[in-house]
Amino acid sequence: MIYLDHHSATRPCSAALERMTPYLQDRWGASFAPHKMGQELIASLDTHYQMIYDLVGAGEPDRFVFTSSGAEGINQVFLSIFLEVARKTGKTHIIVSEIEDAPTMRCAKRLEELGCTIKIAPAKDGLIDVEALAKLINPRTSLISVSMAHGLTGVIQPADEIINLAKEKNILLHLDATYAVGKYPIAFESDYLTFSGDRIHSVKGSGGLFAKEKAPLVPLILGGNEQAGYRGGSFDIPSFMALSAAASQASLYLDTMALEVARLRALFESSVQGEVLFKNHLRLPNTSLIAFKGVHQEALLYFLSRKGVYAAIGGAYAPHLSTIDETALSFSLSRMTTEEEIVKAAKIINDTVKDLQSISEAL
Amino acid sequence: MIYLDHHSATRPCSAALERMTPYLQDRWGASFAPHKMGQELIASLDTHYQMIYDLVGAGEPDRFVFTSSGAEGINQVFLSIFLEVARKTGKTHIIVSEIEDAPTMRCAKRLEELGCTIKIAPAKDGLIDVEALAKLINPRTSLISVSMAHGLTGVIQPADEIINLAKEKNILLHLDATYAVGKYPIAFESDYLTFSGDRIHSVKGSGGLFAKEKAPLVPLILGGNEQAGYRGGSFDIPSFMALSAAASQASLYLDTMALEVARLRALFESSVQGEVLFKNHLRLPNTSLIAFKGVHQEALLYFLSRKGVYAAIGGAYAPHLSTIDETALSFSLSRMTTEEEIVKAAKIINDTVKDLQSISEAL
Repeated sequence: MIYLDHHSATRPCSAALERMTPYLQDRWGASFAPHKMGQELIASLDTHYQMIYDLVGAGEPDRFVFTSSGAEGINQVFLSIFLEVARKTGKTHIIVSEIEDAPTMRCAKRLEELGCTIKIAPAKDGLIDVEALAKLINPRTSLISVSMAHGLTGVIQPADEIINLAKEKNILLHLDATYAVGKYPIAFESDYLTFSGDRIHSVKGSGGLFAKEKAPLVPLILGGNEQAGYRGGSFDIPSFMALSAAASQASLYLDTMALEVARLRALFESSVQGEVLFKNHLRLPNTSLIAFKGVHQEALLYFLSRKGVYAAIGGAYAPHLSTIDETALSFSLSRMTTEEEIVKAAKIINDTVKDLQSISEAL
Repeated sequence: MIYLDHHSATRPCSAALERMTPYLQDRWGASFAPHKMGQELIASLDTHYQMIYDLVGAGEPDRFVFTSSGAEGINQVFLSIFLEVARKTGKTHIIVSEIEDAPTMRCAKRLEELGCTIKIAPAKDGLIDVEALAKLINPRTSLISVSMAHGLTGVIQPADEIINLAKEKNILLHLDATYAVGKYPIAFESDYLTFSGDRIHSVKGSGGLFAKEKAPLVPLILGGNEQAGYRGGSFDIPSFMALSAAASQASLYLDTMALEVARLRALFESSVQGEVLFKNHLRLPNTSLIAFKGVHQEALLYFLSRKGVYAAIGGAYAPHLSTIDETALSFSLSRMTTEEEIVKAAKIINDTVKDLQSISEAL
């Protein structure tokens, strides 16, 4: 098996599994319990939080909520805006971009049904059009919610420009860092930032939401006072520990991502006979969107899967792909990807594409 | 350590950890991925769902949503009622009982802030007062949300009467089965039922929501089409597998709970020198609420914790305890509790209580 679909899921790294295990097997108490089984858990949390903060360049007054996924974090941001801003101040106007994944799009839709106005900023050539976005702003705009990078194209979005714009206009900004975090160094300069553990070699059921000290924030899951009241339900400390270990590893491997993974991606792109899309953009170091002339992407994906090469069409959420060629597959590498795999994958892909092209020509 | 706080957290059973492990280590693909790493996951799910259905007596048309906790399931029920019933039909009237835990109480409060009317049915002598509850019903009542059993007192609530009442009045009913499931055989006869994995020897980050085929249900976490669209965010299959294994074990051990655990509880209650509260009620077989004359519960809990005996005061959510004596601790056993532990715990408790009583008399 050659796995090149790391924007859908990643293998949990051994550091994550090892750090999680004692909390599954022995230290399984409830963190809210007022006896030793609970209290000893709390004592050990601080350094583990720090590793997650470090990965996104967050600091002391910033708040972090451990969530079960990036999607959950996004839902919490939108609910917070709805309850704390839109309903209380009448600032019911929200801007997202057309390249957003399903969680953002569906959260926006739900708020629309609850009386908010949603505007969708267009993208041009894979990039969110910041000028067009700026024109959508009005005095009632409360939130801008956009991605830092696109999982299928790999295109890094103009986050700095959008951060400046939001600050200038005094609008809350949520950045979806799902595909950015662990791929290049980021700093937490927006009001909210969300990401998913299972894209950075943590376990499923782990993710996070950062919020600046003054950003409105309410629980999505109401319950007891777990996580300072920001998320009810027993605190899933084993998965939190896995996320913390994965975050620490992701920080350590940022150089590898920029150098070795980028080198393998270049090798891959020069070996595969197809057209690399968005090649001249600033891209994530691990992602290739490649079009194969005369080949339907679903057929190619199917035959590659049978041969043990795993790639993505629509990624997690099958969004907004009308603009992307129907002959393209998206490949995403990780620090666990080897040169041998890349060489093999390129050969299998080239052979399969050739077969499919000859069938399609024969028809 | 003698752990008698099983309504706050339970040790994940080896079956749960063993079933989870291959999905953490090897089968970590995204279930939505259109290639083999994803599709082979889906194929294996059916029998595992069945084990969870069996535990609560649910059947084919019933829907199940894997959640990260019981609290999450409760939040999803309340949001579904708000969006699909209250807003659409004007039936904005919701009834909970005064013995509910924090997730239910806070969900009710949030809906109140959004324009619903919340009525709180009183409890009498540890039992929800069904007659008083019935009097709160009016033509705009959309939901009744109550617990099947109380985690601290152990008192089993009159669920059958409330089920009949809700059916007769055509009102949706949510039963919080957090403390009931795995303690005695239950049948899914309400519209919604929620529970937490970490109270039945599954891992943290696992829980469930059952909904009848026709009960209004929307996602709390919006995202892709994971879990038939009822919960966005990558499906946490490792934790789902743990829940499934734990459910299957809990079903197998229902007899043990009714016989052996009940026997140990009786031994405990006859050995401890204190007043067992609610002793003549129908109670969970594993729970004892015991008052110790002249002893403050927090002091007792503290000294017991130092001696390695772990119990509960307010349990997870410290609710509505004004009615319970301030000298009482709640002890909850599990199928993992041994006779040796019970004998030892009773001795340590008796000694500690005696010490505290003599201090309090000396003052």
